[in-house]
Amino acid sequence: MMLMGDKGSVQTQTKVLSQGCWTQVSCPCCVSKQVEPLVLIQLSDSIQPVTKRWLISLIEASKRHGGAALLTHPGEDECGNVIVVSAPRCTLLRATEDLGLCKKYRNEEMASFSYHDRDNFTNVDDMQKFLTLAERQYIVKNELDSLQAQKKQRIPGVPEAPGVLEAWENICQKLVRAGVIKNIFPLHDQKRLNDLGRRWYSKKQIWRQPLDAIQSYFGGTMAFYFSFLQFYTWALVPPAFLGLVLTFLLPGGGGVVKEQAGEGVMEEEDYGLSVSGHMVQAVFSMLWSTVFIEFWKRRSSSLSHRWGTRHLTERFAEPRPGFYGTLGINPVTGRLEPLFPEWQRQLRVGLVSLPLVGLFLGLVVLGMTGFYHGEALVQGFHQDSGSLFSGVLLYMPSIAHTVYTTILKNVYHAVAMQLTKWENHREESSFQNHHITKVLLFTFFNNFAVLFHIAFYKQDLPLLRKKLASLLILNQLVNQCTEVVVPFIVDRFLSAPHKKEQEDDLEMDKLRAQRRLPPFPGLFAEYIELLVKFGYLSLFSCVYPLTAVLLLLNNVTEIPGDAYKICKLFRKPFSAPVSNMGVWQTAFEVLGFVSVMSNCWLLLLSPRVQEFCLEGGISGKNILLVAILVEHVLILVKMILAFMIPDEPDWVRIKREQIEFNSMQALGKQKL
Amino acid sequence: MMLMGDKGSVQTQTKVLSQGCWTQVSCPCCVSKQVEPLVLIQLSDSIQPVTKRWLISLIEASKRHGGAALLTHPGEDECGNVIVVSAPRCTLLRATEDLGLCKKYRNEEMASFSYHDRDNFTNVDDMQKFLTLAERQYIVKNELDSLQAQKKQRIPGVPEAPGVLEAWENICQKLVRAGVIKNIFPLHDQKRLNDLGRRWYSKKQIWRQPLDAIQSYFGGTMAFYFSFLQFYTWALVPPAFLGLVLTFLLPGGGGVVKEQAGEGVMEEEDYGLSVSGHMVQAVFSMLWSTVFIEFWKRRSSSLSHRWGTRHLTERFAEPRPGFYGTLGINPVTGRLEPLFPEWQRQLRVGLVSLPLVGLFLGLVVLGMTGFYHGEALVQGFHQDSGSLFSGVLLYMPSIAHTVYTTILKNVYHAVAMQLTKWENHREESSFQNHHITKVLLFTFFNNFAVLFHIAFYKQDLPLLRKKLASLLILNQLVNQCTEVVVPFIVDRFLSAPHKKEQEDDLEMDKLRAQRRLPPFPGLFAEYIELLVKFGYLSLFSCVYPLTAVLLLLNNVTEIPGDAYKICKLFRKPFSAPVSNMGVWQTAFEVLGFVSVMSNCWLLLLSPRVQEFCLEGGISGKNILLVAILVEHVLILVKMILAFMIPDEPDWVRIKREQIEFNSMQALGKQKL
Repeated sequence: MMLMGDKGSVQTQTKVLSQGCWTQVSCPCCVSKQVEPLVLIQLSDSIQPVTKRWLISLIEASKRHGGAALLTHPGEDECGNVIVVSAPRCTLLRATEDLGLCKKYRNEEMASFSYHDRDNFTNVDDMQKFLTLAERQYIVKNELDSLQAQKKQRIPGVPEAPGVLEAWENICQKLVRAGVIKNIFPLHDQKRLNDLGRRWYSKKQIWRQPLDAIQSYFGGTMAFYFSFLQFYTWALVPPAFLGLVLTFLLPGGGGVVKEQAGEGVMEEEDYGLSVSGHMVQAVFSMLWSTVFIEFWKRRSSSLSHRWGTRHLTERFAEPRPGFYGTLGINPVTGRLEPLFPEWQRQLRVGLVSLPLVGLFLGLVVLGMTGFYHGEALVQGFHQDSGSLFSGVLLYMPSIAHTVYTTILKNVYHAVAMQLTKWENHREESSFQNHHITKVLLFTFFNNFAVLFHIAFYKQDLPLLRKKLASLLILNQLVNQCTEVVVPFIVDRFLSAPHKKEQEDDLEMDKLRAQRRLPPFPGLFAEYIELLVKFGYLSLFSCVYPLTAVLLLLNNVTEIPGDAYKICKLFRKPFSAPVSNMGVWQTAFEVLGFVSVMSNCWLLLLSPRVQEFCLEGGISGKNILLVAILVEHVLILVKMILAFMIPDEPDWVRIKREQIEFNSMQALGKQKL
Repeated sequence: MMLMGDKGSVQTQTKVLSQGCWTQVSCPCCVSKQVEPLVLIQLSDSIQPVTKRWLISLIEASKRHGGAALLTHPGEDECGNVIVVSAPRCTLLRATEDLGLCKKYRNEEMASFSYHDRDNFTNVDDMQKFLTLAERQYIVKNELDSLQAQKKQRIPGVPEAPGVLEAWENICQKLVRAGVIKNIFPLHDQKRLNDLGRRWYSKKQIWRQPLDAIQSYFGGTMAFYFSFLQFYTWALVPPAFLGLVLTFLLPGGGGVVKEQAGEGVMEEEDYGLSVSGHMVQAVFSMLWSTVFIEFWKRRSSSLSHRWGTRHLTERFAEPRPGFYGTLGINPVTGRLEPLFPEWQRQLRVGLVSLPLVGLFLGLVVLGMTGFYHGEALVQGFHQDSGSLFSGVLLYMPSIAHTVYTTILKNVYHAVAMQLTKWENHREESSFQNHHITKVLLFTFFNNFAVLFHIAFYKQDLPLLRKKLASLLILNQLVNQCTEVVVPFIVDRFLSAPHKKEQEDDLEMDKLRAQRRLPPFPGLFAEYIELLVKFGYLSLFSCVYPLTAVLLLLNNVTEIPGDAYKICKLFRKPFSAPVSNMGVWQTAFEVLGFVSVMSNCWLLLLSPRVQEFCLEGGISGKNILLVAILVEHVLILVKMILAFMIPDEPDWVRIKREQIEFNSMQALGKQKL
């Protein structure tokens, strides 16, 4: 998806989205005076009216006739290059049941929505209240995505070669490939967006964001990201406090303060914290990370209960577009759909994806080794010759490494996407999780390779501390600049002319303005940034206790920054209803366990401990054995902690069991 | 429960269990010509007829009147000290639904039984076919256990002090405490038992036991034990084969063979296997243990599907007898019952039980340290003085240690039981799991403390090998003797007079014979034996590759031995329907992970590796680092393996999803 330069065609459009042009519905419950535009389909500039008519009729057609049962509006006229889509009540309600969303029952409890029993749910007559805006838009997208050709047919107005639909082929994917559809995106509701913005970033609501409003407007994935960000910010307070105490108040602390005293003193004082300070910091951060993630799980489960996403039925829904297989009867749902055996997917993951990912991780290490090797080589050469040529040569390893890393990264991203597609996941969430895991591993490895190299191979703690501090501070500044300040400036000053045009407040203009925004790049970059910083904290914080303080500062600026960005600077993204953070939660959890190993190792390396051993006459081997023992015990303690803290609060567990018990009871009575 | 010496009263009983004396039922579907005696309640010898009449009327009364809705037979006459209990069809069917058992539906699939829909299940008119004998007996026990006093009342014929029932007090527990009930146990069906025995241990069906028949006759827990035993025996074939190859075929192998060559040679040759042989054995056994347990999970899930125990609803049933709390409305089921908050239980487990168990494990270590310390002390003293007194003194540490261990064990068993009761688990399975875990940890620790001491503290591999071999061989011989041969002899020769008496084949006599058998001591001893031996194999096998061969031999004799024992030598136990092995499965799994640490350590210690390092000029610290790295990588590989192998076979997963999908569908249609 790209930002289109489609000024030409936009100029020909009239300025009003007249209500009369919407599809006329026959179903009495779906009739409404005001139809709300939900999703915009951006067509090719050169689209034939016959193709547009065909597509509109397809979208309007009932499900029985292979359509999507949605409402369409042709924009200004038949030749315009947009179709605005909305959804009638019946389609929305049926889709709500299919998704397995929970809604408020008449007894005020959340219950899985059932179309058959719709009248017992509250607000069922007002779709604007019953479903959130994000849910309505996601449903429209879902219905469009599930359009399939009933039989082999030609697309009218499209040349022969790309224009033939095979039976059961996914129509939207085909039209995108054929260049007919350029883009499908949900529309902003400017009034609600401004309201939300006022309550969110304008008032700097860092500690209490309007999460329900975010969930309602931007949808599940986005709301979970911001909820996690807020929870994480709160959770950073204790380690930040400890870091401050250790650094500035304890005797023997103050590595940072003393570092400023100059080179001569530094070598003596650079040991940083005292042994006990180190220990306290390390053990605290190891246990903290487990408590943090366990309590997040509880928070997450109560959020998903509140948002009605605890009983999503994605696995019983139709497969994601892009899923392929031999056509057959799904043994579970009894529907005709492509089938692909689970064991084959497992084999593909295990025997191809896993080794390939390993290979790329190996290439990262290889690159780094090559870099260090090259640098040593060049430095030796420069010391020997000292010429201008050798001086220039000094930069070569860095340049070569950067080029290598960039190429590797791009190749890997392409490979990861292809591999995940080839693994052929049936559910979108499973696809996402596998894809994210792959990219995540690589990105993480790439980010931490240097630090690990310094910590474990060079075993140079002062360097590690300096590197960490510079990464934390520089990263933060750079990120804030690129993420917020630059787009803000662009938005305010460079795109100002378009802004003014928009002020005449006509609907088509608003749509046009939205098309001009860049598409939202997804939450991956945001999550990975959090994860990497969490990594700095949990893996290395005993080296640099101020990490938590810097992270806290970072998060406090990140929340309004991200909020502003997503509200103002990007096109609105689709966002599926989800019940948790998915694979990100696991990533944070795993990092917590890896941190035990790294912290034990760093403690072992710390000069004070080494000195302490020398004084006590303890051999290096024995202290290593003690470290291993401590590591295993700490991992055990973490596992016991994780086991002891229930993953859902009592009230959520009781609600869940109530639902399970009631459905068991109902089933027993109903069967026959 | 104890074996009673109740000959006196038995003599007064007549010899026939006449059908006419059974409770007369009014419900037409429950009438049957032949009532099957299921459970025997053994009363006190001095029971008053009025108490017996009261108890019988209580058991016969309908549920609405606070009874158990069962059928009773007063034995010979009103004064006899037994009540034989059976169950009418309605009670059985309702209990089947309450337990959540799955039975065959008319479409040949398994479905959760529903009383409302009973006519669509196969064999529903013939209780002998519909429910297994073990299930029928378990249901009777369950109904008896759930008898509660409706209001405060006196037990007729019992003295004031123990004879007052509080409202909601559990009646059976009270009667046992008051000495009115001595015992409740299920009755054998001699004909079916003989059939089963013929197919099972007589034909030495080690590799293909009649598991379905075992499940049907002895019930779930027992069937899972024997299924696991068989699966385990099969799984031992590859490591046994590898062990044989490494020991006898590979050059450098044959630790055992060469050990026989005498003291002089031994010191040279006692290195055992070559380095590579060691490695192969260690890595193989580490990966094998994961594959083994993962495939057992698959087997286990298909067994529980076959036996209809995949959807047990214990958590929605009434709490176990012994559960206490403030009376209130269960928020999930809406029933009036004692309530106890989950967080309080968690706190009790975490803050009291866990530290106490840790304390006892510490005491085991303390005892062992004391023993070694004392032994060194006494030996030193003996060498100095060499008197008779000091010679006698030599035995003191051993004796003291044995006494200490025995006392500790008994105290611990009592403490573990009390702790688990105090934790106040609502479900019987949860109670069992927590109790077993406690005892298990201690027993395991006790068994392995010496081996760990030799391996990790003394670091004496030849001693470890000898100890292991002697433990394996001696244990096996002793176990076989005490478990099978002795009881067999007792059964055949010492209790022969009773046998003959039994041959006149009258029902009351059979019952009497069963009362004379000792109660079955439970599967704990059997499982812990398996677990400890699995521990020898997975933790230390790289030291002594023949372990797997010896274990295989052991299992081959264990299966018919255990089968004979349970069929012939003990009273029949109650056995709940269960869906898996419970905490034992976890124990085997955990052991698999611990084995990585132990094997890596043992490899590191092995003289060949040490020699290899010396030759290569690798420092002790570096090789230790390599070992740590290998350990972490292997644990990672094991985790990936465990993740990659699905816990249930595809066909079971599909059946499960079918059930879930159908109930979701049905619910959506049914709600209103």
